Parts: sequence; structure tokens; C-alpha cells
Amino acid sequence: MMYTQKMLRDGALNGKTIVVTGGGSGLGKAMSKYFLELGANVVITSRNLDKLKATAEALEQETKGTCLPLQCDVRNYNEVEAMLKGAVENFGKVDVLLNNAAGNFISPTERLSANAFDTIIDIVLKGTKNCTLAFGKHWIDTKQTNTSVLNIVTTYAWTGSAYVVPSATAKAGVLAMTRSLAVEWAKYGMRFNAIAPGPFPTKGAWDRLLPGDLKDKFDMAKKVPLNRVGDHQELANLAAYLVSDFSAYVNGEVITIDGGEWLKGAGQFNLLEAIPEEIWDQLEAMIRAKKSKS
Amino acid sequence: MMYTQKMLRDGALNGKTIVVTGGGSGLGKAMSKYFLELGANVVITSRNLDKLKATAEALEQETKGTCLPLQCDVRNYNEVEAMLKGAVENFGKVDVLLNNAAGNFISPTERLSANAFDTIIDIVLKGTKNCTLAFGKHWIDTKQTNTSVLNIVTTYAWTGSAYVVPSATAKAGVLAMTRSLAVEWAKYGMRFNAIAPGPFPTKGAWDRLLPGDLKDKFDMAKKVPLNRVGDHQELANLAAYLVSDFSAYVNGEVITIDGGEWLKGAGQFNLLEAIPEEIWDQLEAMIRAKKSKS
Amino acid sequence: MMYTQKMLRDGALNGKTIVVTGGGSGLGKAMSKYFLELGANVVITSRNLDKLKATAEALEQETKGTCLPLQCDVRNYNEVEAMLKGAVENFGKVDVLLNNAAGNFISPTERLSANAFDTIIDIVLKGTKNCTLAFGKHWIDTKQTNTSVLNIVTTYAWTGSAYVVPSATAKAGVLAMTRSLAVEWAKYGMRFNAIAPGPFPTKGAWDRLLPGDLKDKFDMAKKVPLNRVGDHQELANLAAYLVSDFSAYVNGEVITIDGGEWLKGAGQFNLLEAIPEEIWDQLEAMIRAKKSKS
Amino acid sequence: MMYTQKMLRDGALNGKTIVVTGGGSGLGKAMSKYFLELGANVVITSRNLDKLKATAEALEQETKGTCLPLQCDVRNYNEVEAMLKGAVENFGKVDVLLNNAAGNFISPTERLSANAFDTIIDIVLKGTKNCTLAFGKHWIDTKQTNTSVLNIVTTYAWTGSAYVVPSATAKAGVLAMTRSLAVEWAKYGMRFNAIAPGPFPTKGAWDRLLPGDLKDKFDMAKKVPLNRVGDHQELANLAAYLVSDFSAYVNGEVITIDGGEWLKGAGQFNLLEAIPEEIWDQLEAMIRAKKSKS
Repeated sequence: MMYTQKMLRDGALNGKTIVVTGGGSGLGKAMSKYFLELGANVVITSRNLDKLKATAEALEQETKGTCLPLQCDVRNYNEVEAMLKGAVENFGKVDVLLNNAAGNFISPTERLSANAFDTIIDIVLKGTKNCTLAFGKHWIDTKQTNTSVLNIVTTYAWTGSAYVVPSATAKAGVLAMTRSLAVEWAKYGMRFNAIAPGPFPTKGAWDRLLPGDLKDKFDMAKKVPLNRVGDHQELANLAAYLVSDFSAYVNGEVITIDGGEWLKGAGQFNLLEAIPEEIWDQLEAMIRAKKSKS
Repeated sequence: MMYTQKMLRDGALNGKTIVVTGGGSGLGKAMSKYFLELGANVVITSRNLDKLKATAEALEQETKGTCLPLQCDVRNYNEVEAMLKGAVENFGKVDVLLNNAAGNFISPTERLSANAFDTIIDIVLKGTKNCTLAFGKHWIDTKQTNTSVLNIVTTYAWTGSAYVVPSATAKAGVLAMTRSLAVEWAKYGMRFNAIAPGPFPTKGAWDRLLPGDLKDKFDMAKKVPLNRVGDHQELANLAAYLVSDFSAYVNGEVITIDGGEWLKGAGQFNLLEAIPEEIWDQLEAMIRAKKSKS
Repeated sequence: MMYTQKMLRDGALNGKTIVVTGGGSGLGKAMSKYFLELGANVVITSRNLDKLKATAEALEQETKGTCLPLQCDVRNYNEVEAMLKGAVENFGKVDVLLNNAAGNFISPTERLSANAFDTIIDIVLKGTKNCTLAFGKHWIDTKQTNTSVLNIVTTYAWTGSAYVVPSATAKAGVLAMTRSLAVEWAKYGMRFNAIAPGPFPTKGAWDRLLPGDLKDKFDMAKKVPLNRVGDHQELANLAAYLVSDFSAYVNGEVITIDGGEWLKGAGQFNLLEAIPEEIWDQLEAMIRAKKSKS
Repeated sequence: MMYTQKMLRDGALNGKTIVVTGGGSGLGKAMSKYFLELGANVVITSRNLDKLKATAEALEQETKGTCLPLQCDVRNYNEVEAMLKGAVENFGKVDVLLNNAAGNFISPTERLSANAFDTIIDIVLKGTKNCTLAFGKHWIDTKQTNTSVLNIVTTYAWTGSAYVVPSATAKAGVLAMTRSLAVEWAKYGMRFNAIAPGPFPTKGAWDRLLPGDLKDKFDMAKKVPLNRVGDHQELANLAAYLVSDFSAYVNGEVITIDGGEWLKGAGQFNLLEAIPEEIWDQLEAMIRAKKSKS
């Protein structure tokens, strides 16, 4: 087996309807595709309806599944409620919400206006909150159980990160929401989990974030112990596990899938990997010499 | 020495000007008082100018220090900038920002409207962001160094908590902002830290949060290994350390001061404290008996 | 699909040889069985050869796979090296090490002797270290890549826990080893991950730990937001994912599978779940009344 | 005030007797000196009695305090009990245990023997356990309250670190022990806390760890956002706070004092600090240009 292959047994998501915000492109699209292949109905949403329609059509052709595009700005609670209504009208029910819509600025923080900062909080944190609140209340009202919410966060939701501070701030909020509701709403038959992905490049997003030759200069693969970026199917495999019933006892958890990237930065002596074998040999010899003298 | 006594040597905050948001009452007032006693000038801000003025007057009388009340709704960036301007005009400079202003609802999350949830995010997260951004840009522009920001978060910023989900969400965002800027803005001579206080009751806040006999029913002291709530001076001692130069090498850190409360809940077998000594005696005897047979 | 069903596509572990320490019973046996069903060769080890042989025979009959029992006290490095040698001689190579062998005392810590405490450190921490060091050096020497180590830790490896302090101590050490080597030995093609299981009862272990009616009195299910203990297949599904190539980008990660148990204890206000709906109604009415007055 | 000055009010540790393992040199000596200055009696222990005696004499001369040198190999429980007995006989009681004795190898892990790895576990983890168990049982037996244990761990106790894996492993165990007993033994009037220091160079230790020109090549200050290593008095100030009654409500906490070092490594985009201002200007211009077109 290769990590680029598909993990779950066939039909693992049969009968489930999954709403993927930001599902029109990038990682949202990759996860949606695999959900469709596993038998789920998928609703993809974003602000750009044309793009959504094109994506839905392409995904249906590739997977023979059913994919519904619904326009929605997650910052607007009314639009979220309308989107939920549309999904339910079409499929009878929704089982899973995947909060994947996001925004980010890579910038020194002092170059951001208070408004620019707010924009990221509104999309990422308030958007996730709007969807979670609308879907959660709906599930409670209709007494639907065996539902779940999966949130895409970042590896720096816990450690923070310079140059992406609005995103770090907002994603940390999403993580706390995940854990809080995993406990509070468990009694209503909901589960809440999150994925913290490391570098999974997508053409559009990464070009926008690091234009020009910066992308080459700051090669994300070099920071990863495994020395490579992630493959979209790897993320899709993990996401499918977490929205499936196979993960029914995983609740309130955030799973990091980054090849060990954040740990490599975090550990105090990890930089010593730059020491070549010959120097380690010399050091050993020195220590042995000292011991034999003493 | 007793823990209710004052910790730092005299004059430890001489020459510093400290802005305390939400400084008109409760823990903000307690910290402000100790800062004044240690020689700092203190600016207290909140939306309620009458209350601020009364507090400032009382604090000046008690401490012989200088306390300036400035009205400010931290949700409004323009008001934050005006407040900063007022503080600088009065004291020549500001050295420390203590983001203490907060709001909270104790409620099942499904009973909250999207707007109510937003209110807490706006006060806690956007308010802290507004102050941090305004002060940070000012310090960068004026090349002022040896400045610091102290944020009051909660013990559930990391674990989340049911029934206070907007606060958990917003405070987690504040924590990530603290850690992010501790790294990014260190080059400008700023430090960022946080305190996560456990139960430090204040008359107003706790009565509002848990009205009637709920306060007695859910006695916070019982959840604390040390079996008591915190004394305001204990929090003030820690806060004074963190805003003083004595903590100059503490950066990006959140210090929990809760008597071990969160850990007591978290550890899987901590509930076994309910087992009395006699039962442990019996268990030991059983185990010994088994061993002697085998 | 039900969570008690098997997750991975057929043959997901074809061609892999997996060593499971403590594989003769309990969760080790359950994971071994599923690995065999997925096509892996499995080596089970423990100190009790008779038990191992019986388990291996039973597993081979149930799964039609190949299961080799090898006696080994993981506290003894020479025995670990001999066990590795035996596994390689039999299967040509070993691909995965699952450190599952463990020991535990449930006891007030002051009732433990220094020696008793050491016993748990020796089995859990030094045992895991011995296996990891022997297998890692072997993989480095033979230049075998695409290998991985999976360690079973506990949810209290991070938070600690009273009454199981030697285990908490030792498992925390295992977790740090997991993360350290995930970075250091990635260049040799090894991955390191861990699982922190919540309550997955096994007949033997739980009876030994909580004899008599204590098991009923301290019903672990009540502490779990999902209100149930875990099913062995749920753990096996997660373990199979982590030893398979499908998790190739998961490295240095510990995945908690506990239904949200530890979070339920940790969050400061989670205990408010004891408040009935009527009281929340009254509280809301009180708050509304106050607002309309002000 | 400067961070190299002394923080606590005079006499803050009057009447306390503090045992500092590994107190004969380095950071242990620096903390011991400040405890003496604050009025405590201090017992310093290590294996090297000659060195201890010289240190005790020097410290007494500098501080006019009382410092007792006691030989003890913390790996040996009998020696620990004898050391405790000696301290109590001399001072009537002991109030605080500071577990500071440690060992470390900087080495690729595959170059370590199983025995070498064990040596670090034995000194750091079992040594700390031996002292904690002996002192804790003594305090329980004699019903002495208002006692506390302070453990020196590392910033990589949580994240792990390559090239110092035995230390990472052992220190993580110490951290879990700290948190576990902070909950379990609180009822006996004991507190448990830890400090995770970043780079606080000491002549001996750092030269041994990174001989030759490696020390210059891997300049620890560069990894610290504050761009400097720590001063011994900064660590002493924090330690004095944690062993004093002023921290009476801090329990089960580990305080990191590293200038933000570990966070700088951990955050995904922190490496972008290498981008100069001119490039940020260009990026901003590009983004603005794109926006005006769309």
C-alpha cells in the first residue's frame, strides 16, 4: 500500500450527508472528492457560486456521487441558516459539518489594520461559530443524533506563530470551541474533532501567500522531519476517518498531520542535526579520552 | 510570610506607567492597587467613567500613587487609540498594557444567539487585539523598548469548557496572540505573557454568573486540591512580577494560578480520592494475599 | 457502518511484520488480531510463554494469519535483542514495533515503596526504551526504511494523575521519547506515534486494578461525555491506521481516543451539566428581567 | 529596576529550610545563594563532598546565611533517606525540596548504549522520585504542612528533543510526577511546581555538552526572540517566588523561563523573520495592485 492510496473500506460513508465549507477548491475539494467516493452526499459551500458549480460538476463526474453547491458567506448567520435549510431540503438531513473555510494574511502584524485583523477573525472564528451554532441547534431541535463536526485548524493554534497572527488567533478559538462542545453537546449525540494540517500545498493558496520566489526560498518541506510536504489523499484519509463512524470514540481531539514539522522546530536541540557524523565521532573520542584520564 | 502579604521589594515598578483595561473593579482593581503601591502610574479604563473615577480616587487615597481613569470601549479601535493618546499625554509614555477587560455568559451554548456569542468575542478577543495592536504600533513607531503586554486568560483557554464556550473561544484566541507576538515583536523590545487564574471570587462577577443558591451548590473551592479559592493579593503578586523587569526572561508564557484546579479535573484517576483509608488497607491486604499464594 | 466494524480496506497491512509487546492478552491481543486480519505477520511477546502460545494459536485459527509467540522481558536489553533476532529470523524483517507492554499500580503514592515505583518505570519506560533502541539501531544498521514505532500511552501522560503516579511518570517519558525520535530518526525512514486510550476495559486488568465493588462504584463510563467505554475494535482501527502506510504523514503525534473523558474533567465549568433545564430557564428569566429594568 | 537585581522583599524565606540537590555548582548554587540571602537555611547535596563543602563555605561567607553540605547520590534511596535525616537533625525540619540534580548526554541516540540511556533515567527521574518519595512520606508521617517541592525540568519535557533523548524522556517523567502529586498530596499541605529553563549557561556544563567550537557555532542566544541567554539571578528570582509562600496558590504548574525560545522554533511561520522590510513592501504593493484590478 502507498500513502497516496485510499484507506477506508468501500461504502464507509454510505448514507451520510456532509457539508464542507470552503469546499470549492484546494483541500476542501480534495476531502469532498474522497467523501463522495466513499458514498457520502456532499454539500460544498463558499461565496463564489460559479466556482462551486464547476467543482460540483467535476466531482460528480469523477466520483459518480452527488454533490450540491450552495452559496454562503459564513460570516453571515442568516446565510448559514439558509444554507443549512437548502442542504436539508435536498438530502433530508445533514450528518456532518466540516468547517474548512478560512482566510489568512502572511504579514508582519504591525502592517495590518485593525479591520484586516478582524476580517480573519470573522471568516475563521465567527464563520466556524456561525455554522456550528446553526447546525448544532438544528440537530438538538430535531433530536438527530450520531452527528459530528470536524474543524480544520493549524499546528500553530496552540503555539501561535509570527506573521500569521490573525489566523493563529482565530484558529486557536476554533480549537477551544471544538473541545468545549465535545464535552457539552456530547449528550445530544454530537462529536467534535479537529485536524491540524502541516504543509499540504495547493496551487492557489500558496501562491497568494508567498508570491514570487519566496515560495522557493522558504521551502516548507525542509522544515519537515520526513522531508516532504503532504499529499492531499493523506489528509482526505484522515478526514474520512474522523467523519466516519469508525472514529466514534474520538471526541474533542485535534490530530496533527504534519510529518513532525512543528516538533522539529520546537525541540531545543533539534538544530544539532547540522552536526556531521565526523564531528560526533570526534566528540565521542574526546569524551572517552577524558574518562580514561579521570 | 503569608501568601496574603506583598511580595516585591519596594519601588519595584517605579517609573513605569501601566494601563489596566477593566481596571475599575474586581481583579483589575486589585492588581492596579498593588501596581500603585509598588510605584507605578496606573491608567484604568472601562466603559463606565463614573465607576472609574470613584475607583481612581479611592486607589489614590489608599496608595498615595497616581491613577488616571480613562473611558474606553475596547471594541472600538478609535476609542482605544484615543485612550492610548490620553495616557501618553498624561504620563509621557506607557510601558505596560494589561488586557484584563472581559465578558462572559454562563449558559448552555444552544441557548445563546449568534449575536450574544459575538459580543464575548468582540469584548475579549477583538478588544484585546485592538489594544495590543494600537499599543504595539505606537511602541514600534516611537522606538520605545522594554515594554510588555500581560493578558488575563483562563485555565480553560487550552482545554475548553462547556457552558462558557464564547469565553473559552475568545480567551484561547488571546492566548495564541500572546504567544505569536512574543516571538514576532520581541525584536522591538516587547514581551508578551498571560495569567490563567483559577477561582478568585469577586462580589459582582460571581453573583452575576451564578445567581441564587447556585453559587453555594457549585462551590469552586471543592474542585481545588488546595481546598480554597485564591486571594486577590496572590494574583496581584504574580501580575506584578510579570509586568516588572524581574520577569524580563519570561516571554510567551502563560502562568496558571489555580491551586491545581484544572489538573484535579483532568487526571483520569483523580476521582479515587473518594476512597477512604480503610478500603486502601483492604486492597493492600488482598494484593498481598494473592502474591503470597502465587 | 458501525464503530464496531473493521475500518481499513482488505490487505492494508500485507507484507508487514509487526511486533506487539504485551501482545498475549487484552488490548495487545485485540490489536494483534486485527493486524493479522489485515494481512500482517505478527510477533507477540511477553514474559509468559504459555499464554503467548495459546494466544498465537487462537489468533491464527481465527484469522488464518501467521502469529509468532516469543518470550521476552522487555526490562532486559539482551532479551529484547534476542527477541528481535528471533522475529527477523522468522520473517526476514520487522517493519513495526508496537510498545504495548505495561504495568500499573492503583494506590496512594505514599503506600508505594521506592522499589515498587521503580518496577513500573522499568517495565513501561525502560522496557519501551529497550525495544525502541534495539529496533531503531537494527533499522539504521540494515538501512531498512518505511518502519514505524507505535507507543501506547495514557491520557494522563500530559496532565498527570493521582493514584497511578508511577504509570503517569513512565508514560510521560514514553511520550517525550516518541516525539524526540519522531524528529531525530525521521532521516532514517522511521515514524513514531502514540495512542492515548481512555477506558477500554479488559477483564483481567481492570479486575486487578479495581477489585471488589470498586469497579462499579467508579464507573468509568460516567466520566465520558459519550457515556460509554470504548470497544476494542475502535482502538484496533486507530492502531491499524497508525501502523499502516496510510498514516505516513502522521509523525510525532499522540492521538487520544477516550470519548472526550479527559476534557470533561479538565474544563472548569463542565460540572454545570448537573444543572437541570428548569434552572437554566429561571436564570434566563432573571437575566432578562434585570436587563429590562436597566 | 534591572532584571539582574533581586526581586523579593527582605526576609521572604525566613524560617524555611530548603534542600537543593545538585546544589554544589551551576544553577543549583545560584538559587541556593539567593535563598540564603532571603533568610532560608539551605542544604546542598551532590555526590562530591569536597566540592559541596567549598561551595557551602563560600556561600556562607557571601550571604551570612547557614548552608549545610550533605553528600548524597540521589539514585540510592538509602542515601536519600540518610540525607533527609541529616537535614532534619541539623535544622529541626525541612520545608522545601528543590530537585535540581541532573545529567545529560548530547548525542545521536543511536550512539547511546541502553546502559547510558538508563544512567540519565536513574539520575534524573529515579533520583527525583527517590527524593520526592522520601520527603513526602516524611512530611505525611510527621504531619508537617506548608511544604513544597520544586522540580527543574526542561522546555523539551513536553515537545521532546532530538540529541538529548534520555534527558527529554526523564524530565517528562518528572513533569508528570509534579502534576500528579500536586493533586494527590495537596491534602497533606504540599505543593508541587516546576521550572523549565531555557539557556542559562554555566561554565562547566555547557563546555562539557558542546565542546570545542560547537558552542560558538550553535549560539543558543540566536534562537531566543529576546536575543540573549538568561541571567542566573532571573532564574533565582523565579525559583525564590515558587519556594516562597507568595506562590501558595500556584500548584501543579510548570513555568517556562526561556525568553520565548521554544515558541520561536515551534510556530510554523516564525522563520519568515528572515524576510527584510523591502520584500514586505514589495509584497504589499503586489497585493494592492491585484486588489485594484479585481
